[in-house]
Amino acid sequence: MGDVPTYLTRVAEAVEATLERLLPSEDTYPSSIHAVMRYSTFAGGKRIRPAFMMAAFEACGGQFGHHDVTLAGAAFEMFHTFSLMHDDLPCMDDDDFRRGKPTAHRAFTEALAVLGGDALCIYAFECLSRLNNVAIVREIAEALGTQGMIGGQVVDIESEGKRVDKAAVEYIHRNKTAALIRASVRTGAIIGNAPSHVLEHLSNYGNCVGLAFQVVDDILDEEGTTEQLGKDAGSDRERGKATFPAVVGMAESKRYAQELIDKACAELTIMGAHGHMLETLARFVGTRLS
Amino acid sequence: MGDVPTYLTRVAEAVEATLERLLPSEDTYPSSIHAVMRYSTFAGGKRIRPAFMMAAFEACGGQFGHHDVTLAGAAFEMFHTFSLMHDDLPCMDDDDFRRGKPTAHRAFTEALAVLGGDALCIYAFECLSRLNNVAIVREIAEALGTQGMIGGQVVDIESEGKRVDKAAVEYIHRNKTAALIRASVRTGAIIGNAPSHVLEHLSNYGNCVGLAFQVVDDILDEEGTTEQLGKDAGSDRERGKATFPAVVGMAESKRYAQELIDKACAELTIMGAHGHMLETLARFVGTRLS
Repeated sequence: MGDVPTYLTRVAEAVEATLERLLPSEDTYPSSIHAVMRYSTFAGGKRIRPAFMMAAFEACGGQFGHHDVTLAGAAFEMFHTFSLMHDDLPCMDDDDFRRGKPTAHRAFTEALAVLGGDALCIYAFECLSRLNNVAIVREIAEALGTQGMIGGQVVDIESEGKRVDKAAVEYIHRNKTAALIRASVRTGAIIGNAPSHVLEHLSNYGNCVGLAFQVVDDILDEEGTTEQLGKDAGSDRERGKATFPAVVGMAESKRYAQELIDKACAELTIMGAHGHMLETLARFVGTRLS
Repeated sequence: MGDVPTYLTRVAEAVEATLERLLPSEDTYPSSIHAVMRYSTFAGGKRIRPAFMMAAFEACGGQFGHHDVTLAGAAFEMFHTFSLMHDDLPCMDDDDFRRGKPTAHRAFTEALAVLGGDALCIYAFECLSRLNNVAIVREIAEALGTQGMIGGQVVDIESEGKRVDKAAVEYIHRNKTAALIRASVRTGAIIGNAPSHVLEHLSNYGNCVGLAFQVVDDILDEEGTTEQLGKDAGSDRERGKATFPAVVGMAESKRYAQELIDKACAELTIMGAHGHMLETLARFVGTRLS
């Protein structure tokens, strides 16, 4: 798995250069909105969604760094950042820090955190429209909507401080986190002209690895240190968040994460050697635990 | 101008039937988000943007009630509602009432007002993607972004309580209001396969009539009663909003609105008799004053 950090770095460099080029500079009027968009977008994410997208594109025979995939990857990072900016708001999770930096509404104003998130979401659609492929617009819109990310966020907020069961936590994670990761994988495959049976296997892969990603996140929130996480450790538990460790315990959470990763990798059998990086990325999600 | 109320009613009926069909019911899980989306969408707007869109489509030789235009009109109403929900938030305009009803964050929660707005924006893009015309996605994304509606909203908020000049108010209104009305007109024309020189005249028309619409709104906020407006009369002045009457006076505001309407109508000369409804709608914007 030694090649994952290198791969993530290569993807991050390509995507960040594209984001740098796409996002209006702070000198562009009105300055404050472009400042907050850039502040949150360049706050130091791993760019894991574009990495899944690029690996899926390569698995379908595409070349690393292809313009359309890099552009779509940059747009997906804007969508992801939009969701974080709104999640962090006082009326939602009320988080002061994210990745060790003040959140957008702390560094700027609440109004700019709302509008900056809105603007990133809208601009991401504008950038995606440049690919001239309406299927990709539909793909991401479905993943983000009330039967996807927003739906997960609604149930997450409404579950806070309540007794919830495993099915509810699974619903939240599948929608809030896995839907966007699944769409990242699918978008890479769509740009790579994957035939429908391949797309189906890759969709299942994205679903499993996306859910595993969030289960691991839950575990790290319990076991990691504040320094490692860039946010308060144990903050999920403190505010009564619906997490896997809270409903099924730590040992079962780890077993479940591993099961999901194995399931994700099993979907790659038909890809043969082309599926190598997707498999390596899935295994890497698991190693974040150790 | 007797036919405008009839036209608006016919458009509203078509668009609201489409919105009723498109928006998930309150029985769809998670219920609360669909409830807030429907609450705000069906809060009684005039559906003026879809009316401009349909009239532009007809001016280009299209048939009233065409499926694609009605769908796009419904999507534009979702975008418009999204912008109102976020504008009304405590961290922005902090409005308790809109069209005589409690605003979304008052009737539901602040979190649901933020997420409901997000969901409407995303779902509107999903609906537009069904038209299989990526140019329309780009059109609306540009109109909504930081060089359009969001940009206008940012400057609007940042100008509150400050001395601003006519150029600043014009910037706010051109972006916050006119950009979406212009995009409505253009989208009707694009679906109607308008040649580029016609599209250019209709763009100018949309710009002028959109700006006139907001100047008239400013005037009504000063002169209308709370009952007529469905919100507090004089509220713009109270909170030091940048308005035309505040910077150029009432008489000059009325003269300017009329000038813009005349300019808008002059752009329709090339349309001949086909431009009748667009002209009637533009004149109607002016009669809201009397």
